Amino acid sequence: MSEKDSSAPKFAKPGNEFIDPEQAIGYQFQPTEYSYSEQEVSLYALSVGAATDAVDEKELQFVYEMNRGGFKVLPTFAVIFPFGALGQIVTVPGLKFNLMNLLHGEQYLEVKRPIAPNGTITNNAHISQIYDKGSGALVIVDIHSTDDDGTEIAFNQASIFLRDIGNFGGNRGPSGKVNLPPDCAPDAVLRDNTIRNQALFYRLVSGDKNPLHADPGFAAMIGFERPILHGLCTFGFAGRAVLKHFAGNDPLRFKSIKARFSHHVYPGESIITEMWRESEKRIIFQSKVGERDEVVLSNGAVELNESG
Amino acid sequence: MSEKDSSAPKFAKPGNEFIDPEQAIGYQFQPTEYSYSEQEVSLYALSVGAATDAVDEKELQFVYEMNRGGFKVLPTFAVIFPFGALGQIVTVPGLKFNLMNLLHGEQYLEVKRPIAPNGTITNNAHISQIYDKGSGALVIVDIHSTDDDGTEIAFNQASIFLRDIGNFGGNRGPSGKVNLPPDCAPDAVLRDNTIRNQALFYRLVSGDKNPLHADPGFAAMIGFERPILHGLCTFGFAGRAVLKHFAGNDPLRFKSIKARFSHHVYPGESIITEMWRESEKRIIFQSKVGERDEVVLSNGAVELNESG
Repeated sequence: MSEKDSSAPKFAKPGNEFIDPEQAIGYQFQPTEYSYSEQEVSLYALSVGAATDAVDEKELQFVYEMNRGGFKVLPTFAVIFPFGALGQIVTVPGLKFNLMNLLHGEQYLEVKRPIAPNGTITNNAHISQIYDKGSGALVIVDIHSTDDDGTEIAFNQASIFLRDIGNFGGNRGPSGKVNLPPDCAPDAVLRDNTIRNQALFYRLVSGDKNPLHADPGFAAMIGFERPILHGLCTFGFAGRAVLKHFAGNDPLRFKSIKARFSHHVYPGESIITEMWRESEKRIIFQSKVGERDEVVLSNGAVELNESG
Repeated sequence: MSEKDSSAPKFAKPGNEFIDPEQAIGYQFQPTEYSYSEQEVSLYALSVGAATDAVDEKELQFVYEMNRGGFKVLPTFAVIFPFGALGQIVTVPGLKFNLMNLLHGEQYLEVKRPIAPNGTITNNAHISQIYDKGSGALVIVDIHSTDDDGTEIAFNQASIFLRDIGNFGGNRGPSGKVNLPPDCAPDAVLRDNTIRNQALFYRLVSGDKNPLHADPGFAAMIGFERPILHGLCTFGFAGRAVLKHFAGNDPLRFKSIKARFSHHVYPGESIITEMWRESEKRIIFQSKVGERDEVVLSNGAVELNESG
């Protein structure tokens, strides 16, 4: 903990939790690096269900580095880049919270340049905003990921919800009622089956080793029947669904993706992604769990670049 | 190619294939190294279906390095150690063959010491025998794998069948009629489902990047409907089945495993391992593909150590 933590907080909760937005907003994380090769790219794609379709072999390009038609990087791979940086949220001055109260609320990813099949990425992250949601604080972390040449490859924005430290008199932020599905049948639907060890696989690939995704005792303590799938894993399934149905599996057409993590998926359940074409360049989506008819990713949108 | 290759072969086939057992037998491969961590151990276990059982959580110990009950290495992980060495079979003097005619015939693995969760392994391999099977040559490669201290951790014996270069007047070798299932119902059966991208996963974990396991065009050229699963992947499923049913998932009880690769598995098919207890220390097994009722691993045996 830095010295700043000992300054008087604007808002304090029993148990030493407190939040001081003025101190926290703008805080720059230490830069982190992430090196990867075709191996990590392929394992990532497999961990979000690529190449499980019995008929369509197009996804082989995301998992097989010697693919005759070429090797391509699944765009949502870029959410992996900054994962090592996000852990620094526990070091932010003006922010002291119980890790058990942390939830990943939303994720936005914008792919700025084609992602190379291997390389070293530098992540520069900072706290861009903190909203007061009443029941908790919504901390917005912006991460710019650049390659060896300093060119920005991807921009991630992670919205982290900290339960119990709301009502600190801050700005409530924008309404969450965006990217709502229209009142009609979806234009495309993709059903994917996850496997029982999906989260155990994704944690090794992503580096997100929160025991909530692996340890049955820990999951029970938080109130889950068993360990749950990473929200960003489901996010990868959904991104893949849109890429397949509306962009011909061409990563160059994939500009951005945003979604809210509204409920959990248990590994082994199926993920059904429903997609609506709002325009040629904008797809609205939501993902449900087939077995419980529950929406797990909501308020989803993918923006596409013009083709060719 | 070494100079010895230009010596007169004892047996020559059209197309420049030839075999000279006297020259080849005893040939020492260049030592190879394999470094691994809990990451590779866990990915391996996941790639052979560990932790997919919805009820039994014991296999978590093979895939989760922070497991409360401890972290253990699935014994068949040791087949990965020498994979990098086996490629040198194309450099053996006295042996010139078409790679398309190479088949992995059998594998024997003996675990000599408990396998550490991370480390660097050195593999010393040599051609120990070549048998004349008429339809081809059976080349036996012995590989001793040692740790940093020079202690032998595992011994692998790979039997490589080279089609079309048999009938060279050599020893036919021992009969293959060993480890036959008794004429009664098995004492235990485990059915595992593989997933459609299982081989694409296993190839990245094992390093066996033969296109037969990934490239639909290549697989078709060899005569398969589509890419097939690695025999050693099925081998891992089978070893896991015996460990679970007859050794309480305790790797220390696992002494050795042997099996013949008799038919292929297509990723997505189910693997049914049937097991018979021959004695307290010896289990006979075979694995079938559920969808085609075909035996894919035959003549299988696992030897167990006395319990604790």
